[in-house]
Amino acid sequence: MISVVILGAGNVATHLFKAFEKADNISVNQWYNRHLKSIASYRNKVAITDNLDTLQIADMYILAVSDDAVAELSAQLPFENRLVLHTSGSVNVHDLDKKNRRGVLYPLQTFSKTADIDFSNVPICIETLHKPDYHIIKQLAVSIGSPAKKINSDQRRALHLAAVFVNNFTNQLYRIGHEITEAHGAEFDLLKPLILETANKIQTVSPYMAQTGPAKRGDKKTIKKHLNQLDKKQHQEIYKLLTAAIQETHASTWLSNRVSDNNSTKK
Amino acid sequence: MISVVILGAGNVATHLFKAFEKADNISVNQWYNRHLKSIASYRNKVAITDNLDTLQIADMYILAVSDDAVAELSAQLPFENRLVLHTSGSVNVHDLDKKNRRGVLYPLQTFSKTADIDFSNVPICIETLHKPDYHIIKQLAVSIGSPAKKINSDQRRALHLAAVFVNNFTNQLYRIGHEITEAHGAEFDLLKPLILETANKIQTVSPYMAQTGPAKRGDKKTIKKHLNQLDKKQHQEIYKLLTAAIQETHASTWLSNRVSDNNSTKK
Repeated sequence: MISVVILGAGNVATHLFKAFEKADNISVNQWYNRHLKSIASYRNKVAITDNLDTLQIADMYILAVSDDAVAELSAQLPFENRLVLHTSGSVNVHDLDKKNRRGVLYPLQTFSKTADIDFSNVPICIETLHKPDYHIIKQLAVSIGSPAKKINSDQRRALHLAAVFVNNFTNQLYRIGHEITEAHGAEFDLLKPLILETANKIQTVSPYMAQTGPAKRGDKKTIKKHLNQLDKKQHQEIYKLLTAAIQETHASTWLSNRVSDNNSTKK
Repeated sequence: MISVVILGAGNVATHLFKAFEKADNISVNQWYNRHLKSIASYRNKVAITDNLDTLQIADMYILAVSDDAVAELSAQLPFENRLVLHTSGSVNVHDLDKKNRRGVLYPLQTFSKTADIDFSNVPICIETLHKPDYHIIKQLAVSIGSPAKKINSDQRRALHLAAVFVNNFTNQLYRIGHEITEAHGAEFDLLKPLILETANKIQTVSPYMAQTGPAKRGDKKTIKKHLNQLDKKQHQEIYKLLTAAIQETHASTWLSNRVSDNNSTKK
């Protein structure tokens, strides 16, 4: 049995609690939050507290709090030499107070308040300063059905940054798609299967191989048409910049297409 | 029974042929391509030809050819007053030669050569210049299991442009995610569940409501860290531009978060 204390009451804390509760070999000994109100609805399922001095002994303490709160909260813990983890993609593991054994349990997924999470779709990236601690964290991850992966600080920082591109920035492109369709009385819903297929494709094909469209083809006529269609200057800038990025990525393909375009025009 | 002649040998033509072949009430009378070689492997399943003068009578002629070839091919058709459709998102319906009844059958999806297509995930956007033609095209779409939607030229142009954002540009963000992870020895595969979840979320929640991350939170510290991490100038520019776009979209949220940040700092 792995015993855990959860600290924090945000989405990550709540989804972890629910997953731990379902697992056979994990026991959540206690759930701490500075405002009891946020976790009060769980009081029949787990011991809750807002007092750090009452924290019980456990195999690990998971600080699922905002990035800015990690250092201070870890310094306030009234014990030493225990395993203390944060869950952030961007906070340095050394920001945790060094009086305890430090590590990171970074669940690489987007968590919403409402939607249920299937943890088999949540890779758990594990970093530990004290090597032997890795195994119990991995066991914890496996117990909730998550793929576990040992990574270092540099890899975690890279994953967190890349996640902003593939999640937040991608979502903003969906938003722009929404704005463009709405502005012309077209249904955004018609794009949803395409959005899903674009994400699906990448599960088995590299983004490089999956690319299509006017930028990759070097189709100047369509690119020009599209730029004229865009009312918003910001959308034009994003179109230009991402088109340039695609063309740089596929420079060789693009040049050979231009050559074959010229050939077919001559014909 | 709806009779069809397909013209062209690209991905769209091929996937349409396969879907038509499976449908009970669609008969592909003939498949034309200027190079017979490209469709020769289908010769046991359908009459193939490279000669426009041999085209048989059919309820509709579907020109699934490159954008640039639509006008010329439609002008070369040796008949009049028949239903002629192109399949492009960006070509004007009036580019089809006016000697025939003109329309568009625009399948809003990304087609790869290899992967099989489930047409229930391919909305067919229908535009016709001669109103009564709509019904047979809709019947065709329904027969292959596709949702059918009547749209006008302006809506189709908007959808095509929006598709570039949510498909080609999104795929380039995946590519950048790939570059960032590879550069730091991290596994791009760890991001795949997040990519899928980001696309899944949007099926039921608006992109506006689905947004999360440092840009939306107005988390200047993380944004600065990320910009320092990016080696490539182009990646920095994309980061800045999309961060600005998110902040503009969520300006009110962002301001109110800043206010509450200030409050909590005071505490």
